Amino acid sequence: MFSTMRLLWEVVVMMLLALFSKAIGTRPYSRTSDPFDSTGYCLSWRVAVEANNLRAWRTVPFQCLRYVENYMVSGQYERDLGMVIEQIYSYIDDIVLFNDGMDAWILDVDDTCISNLWYYKGKRFGCDPYDPIGFKFWALRGVSPAIPAVLDLFTKLVENGFKVFLVTGRDEETLGQATLENLHNQGYLGYERLILRNQVYKGQSAVVFKSEIRKQLVEEGYRIWGNVGDQWSDLLGDCLGQRTFKLPNPMYFVP
Amino acid sequence: MFSTMRLLWEVVVMMLLALFSKAIGTRPYSRTSDPFDSTGYCLSWRVAVEANNLRAWRTVPFQCLRYVENYMVSGQYERDLGMVIEQIYSYIDDIVLFNDGMDAWILDVDDTCISNLWYYKGKRFGCDPYDPIGFKFWALRGVSPAIPAVLDLFTKLVENGFKVFLVTGRDEETLGQATLENLHNQGYLGYERLILRNQVYKGQSAVVFKSEIRKQLVEEGYRIWGNVGDQWSDLLGDCLGQRTFKLPNPMYFVP
Repeated sequence: MFSTMRLLWEVVVMMLLALFSKAIGTRPYSRTSDPFDSTGYCLSWRVAVEANNLRAWRTVPFQCLRYVENYMVSGQYERDLGMVIEQIYSYIDDIVLFNDGMDAWILDVDDTCISNLWYYKGKRFGCDPYDPIGFKFWALRGVSPAIPAVLDLFTKLVENGFKVFLVTGRDEETLGQATLENLHNQGYLGYERLILRNQVYKGQSAVVFKSEIRKQLVEEGYRIWGNVGDQWSDLLGDCLGQRTFKLPNPMYFVP
Repeated sequence: MFSTMRLLWEVVVMMLLALFSKAIGTRPYSRTSDPFDSTGYCLSWRVAVEANNLRAWRTVPFQCLRYVENYMVSGQYERDLGMVIEQIYSYIDDIVLFNDGMDAWILDVDDTCISNLWYYKGKRFGCDPYDPIGFKFWALRGVSPAIPAVLDLFTKLVENGFKVFLVTGRDEETLGQATLENLHNQGYLGYERLILRNQVYKGQSAVVFKSEIRKQLVEEGYRIWGNVGDQWSDLLGDCLGQRTFKLPNPMYFVP
């Protein structure tokens, strides 16, 4: 009997220790000196990325691999995205459209309309450096799924009478057809124009290319009410639009 | 013996349940339906504030009171701030100064140079609406402590030859002397100019007031290398400077 109780007690102590270490290890503000407990650091890193304090970074810090993975797949990414989309709806509700066919809205494509999360899983959620050839092969497959909350937003924009322009730094010549098909098969129907990067803008930064595109739209007479992207390079430069919205993306930086 | 084992077992089960609920309740990505488990929501809210997706908000959502308190006092605020300051140092290291006395840097005052955390503790960390009279009395006391990491940055900027301009929306007439003394007694010595809001800019938004001040500095011949503030209204508008840096502040919004 004594040995049974002792065994029970040992099992209990081990379970308590395991659970206690789990409780400590996952609380948001843990200040333990465990070098592997990098949650606080990685949260600071992610917030610095979203606030555009951290620029031109090449890869996710290696110690944040698990953090970014967890962020992307365990619900907080969707929650952050949902919060921004909620702000967009609240902004749209206050807009009085001119309804002259010139009320415009701009959406970025990659990780705005459609998700490359599956691809980035294979790139250790951004811990591996940008692989232009690998990404090209991925994009050619045309299998990026819609981001549901953004597809809903897109549909509402079109229904409400906005002329929606999808603007992407993807190369028109090589990726035009695959991108068009990917967007269509994911439900992006009824937009005004899909604008990809053509020869003229090859090698230019996204800020320069996208500013120039927006400038042309404004010159055509469009008033840009909103501009949504997962990169700050979508949201800086000229003719930004009445309001910009930054969707979360801790996996890569586009200059 | 049986009753002893049963008692031991019941104690163990209760402890396990308590620990398990703690482990669930405090993990960052909990998706429980508990309405009081608002960590994920409040994190999304805070990131939306820092990324300038959420604007013109009047108060911290009440369900985020404990979250914001915890954020401010348990280390993550300092961690986030430290991450931004680190980026500033890394930016400064690459600057080649002209050293003609016209290399300028702009710092905001409230919750950039000096902290009003103690005051906001009494305002439920921003869950209470802005109280202009209460804040005026607080500011008149001149007891806001320096934010250590920003004081260090300030000192390095002055030592490196930057002309540092402290620009604040505080009213010059009523708060000028108290602000000057507060900054001095906290170690802010050797700056070029402290610029407060005078009669001309009374009632104007911070974006308009601060843009005008920066424009005047640029017209005087200063080149603004950096511009640091805890509000997006410090960092939007005209003559922003070569780079801007957003310090964290989830407690209030200044338009």
